[in-house]
Amino acid sequence: MKFDILFGGLSFEHEISIVSAIALKKVLGDRICHFIFLDSAHRFYLIPADSMKSTFFSAGDYKKCVELFTHRGAFVKKTLFGFKAIVPNTIINLIHGADGEDGTISALLDFYGLHFIGPRIESSVMSFNKALTKLYAQSRGVNVLPYELLTREHREIKHLSYPLILKPARLGSSIGVSVVNDSAQLDYAMDLAFEYDDCIVVEGFRSGVKEYNLAGCKLAGGFEYSIIEEPSKKELLDFEHKYLDFSRTAQVLKADISSELEAKLQACFARLYENAFEGALIRCDFFVIDDEVYLNEINPIPGSMANYLFADFAGVITDLAHNLPKKHSIKVSYKYIEQIHHAKGK
Amino acid sequence: MKFDILFGGLSFEHEISIVSAIALKKVLGDRICHFIFLDSAHRFYLIPADSMKSTFFSAGDYKKCVELFTHRGAFVKKTLFGFKAIVPNTIINLIHGADGEDGTISALLDFYGLHFIGPRIESSVMSFNKALTKLYAQSRGVNVLPYELLTREHREIKHLSYPLILKPARLGSSIGVSVVNDSAQLDYAMDLAFEYDDCIVVEGFRSGVKEYNLAGCKLAGGFEYSIIEEPSKKELLDFEHKYLDFSRTAQVLKADISSELEAKLQACFARLYENAFEGALIRCDFFVIDDEVYLNEINPIPGSMANYLFADFAGVITDLAHNLPKKHSIKVSYKYIEQIHHAKGK
Repeated sequence: MKFDILFGGLSFEHEISIVSAIALKKVLGDRICHFIFLDSAHRFYLIPADSMKSTFFSAGDYKKCVELFTHRGAFVKKTLFGFKAIVPNTIINLIHGADGEDGTISALLDFYGLHFIGPRIESSVMSFNKALTKLYAQSRGVNVLPYELLTREHREIKHLSYPLILKPARLGSSIGVSVVNDSAQLDYAMDLAFEYDDCIVVEGFRSGVKEYNLAGCKLAGGFEYSIIEEPSKKELLDFEHKYLDFSRTAQVLKADISSELEAKLQACFARLYENAFEGALIRCDFFVIDDEVYLNEINPIPGSMANYLFADFAGVITDLAHNLPKKHSIKVSYKYIEQIHHAKGK
Repeated sequence: MKFDILFGGLSFEHEISIVSAIALKKVLGDRICHFIFLDSAHRFYLIPADSMKSTFFSAGDYKKCVELFTHRGAFVKKTLFGFKAIVPNTIINLIHGADGEDGTISALLDFYGLHFIGPRIESSVMSFNKALTKLYAQSRGVNVLPYELLTREHREIKHLSYPLILKPARLGSSIGVSVVNDSAQLDYAMDLAFEYDDCIVVEGFRSGVKEYNLAGCKLAGGFEYSIIEEPSKKELLDFEHKYLDFSRTAQVLKADISSELEAKLQACFARLYENAFEGALIRCDFFVIDDEVYLNEINPIPGSMANYLFADFAGVITDLAHNLPKKHSIKVSYKYIEQIHHAKGK
């Protein structure tokens, strides 16, 4: 089984995606056939494996690589006489944030009939927008922290009390996120978040809350779960720390938790995943407060695919590639048009 | 202001979209510059205006037309020496059902930087999946009828009592919908609906409920509402009747309702539309039971754009084209990559 890695994208997490792709190259080695880079102008480039260094992209050197175009069933490159297909293997969508996680790339790959590992349009939307994630998790019987939504028209906190954490609804990697200790700091934090989104999700901020990350996917035989990690704590994981986080390839230690809690976290994961995230390897980040599990967020394309949480990452991703969801077949018909014309002809 | 019409698509509503495009041609006349047809193999064709007859498509004659390809900023056609751009005007996405209303086409047009009237990815997903529409409407403070969800794994009705109406979660135009009077009919209705979707939305079925349709959009000056129509009733509007419904171009009569109810329906519409459906002209179908308003469904691309509900449809659609939502600008940076390499170089 060979894979192609799609990375980059017009996103605040563009460079994180590059780092993530470089990390995955280390892990999957020559199982990766093509590296396909999407630049900020929405041009695709085929990157030679030995050019997969972060400065190759920051210096703009990628522009000298072969440009690729979308086509039915393949990416294609221009030749003297037309186009030549770069027959894609199973593509791993590794574009974090906008483009990759908002449903755009899923739609594009699906439309052109390309096989890919990653969230489909619907699950992308439900996990990308934190306000929708709240509704979604509740509908699946998974707890979320109490929250309020702010828009430019409604800038008032009604029920929650300080300290608060403000998050732009549709950004990952802590961008635009602020912790606010009193109302004097609120306006600034709102203005910051509104630079990135028209909707802000506000929650009460509690320091010292236990956090656990669990990755996994559904295969033919059932769920495949990663080990559960207790991520190293900072008051708030800032962008720079998350950046380093995305380059991880070293195996981590299993969190020291009871088997009851482990089962609880896995049950929540399964409720969130089933009939929605098939085809993706996702990481769910949970809070545990007074023995209750709360969903913090769903990462449908976790940094470097959370490879460091799996004992046999290559095995899992290969099995997943063999278990991609099939779309319901749709047969276009013209029976009403034909009936009407038949009736008219009488 | 000129428009291009995009229609067809790989969808059970493929032929309805053709009928809808022909109706819009009657209404908008030479304001329409290009007719772009998407066939069931996901090939785009440029259709001459005088070929816009339904049998042209059912007979497969469209295959002789110029094929178009997606490209940044334009659809392009092949020439002897490469490609020539068909510079698009504002595209009206008129692909009903899958492709058009599930977020795929929105993603494609957005990705290639084309201007279009229609729902964006997120609002497409929220209105396409009836189960998500329920969550969404409730979160906006709009009532919905009580419902249950069935999946292949959970085929049991828990609370609702007969008669019931079963709807595949992601199909429009009454396809796969059944009214079930007792448990003996349930299995067959479920099997029918599961042919189209893995999730079924079940509601209690009440005949004789008042229905009102309201279309509209948000323009620079605020909301532009259509007249409110009480659609002609059948026990259940079947596909054939909906088919005819999509070809409507004649103005209809305003429903005979109080100004209080009119205001209530408009308020519900605004709550559903705001900060979600900008860029689209949508039609919301409501039930009214004991003076309470309930959302039935949101049609983000109504048949023939619900032109027959507007006194000045061309004016509304032109204003909407001038008020399309802008995406938050994203600037890709390489500052962390640069910082890290700077630190390493020391």
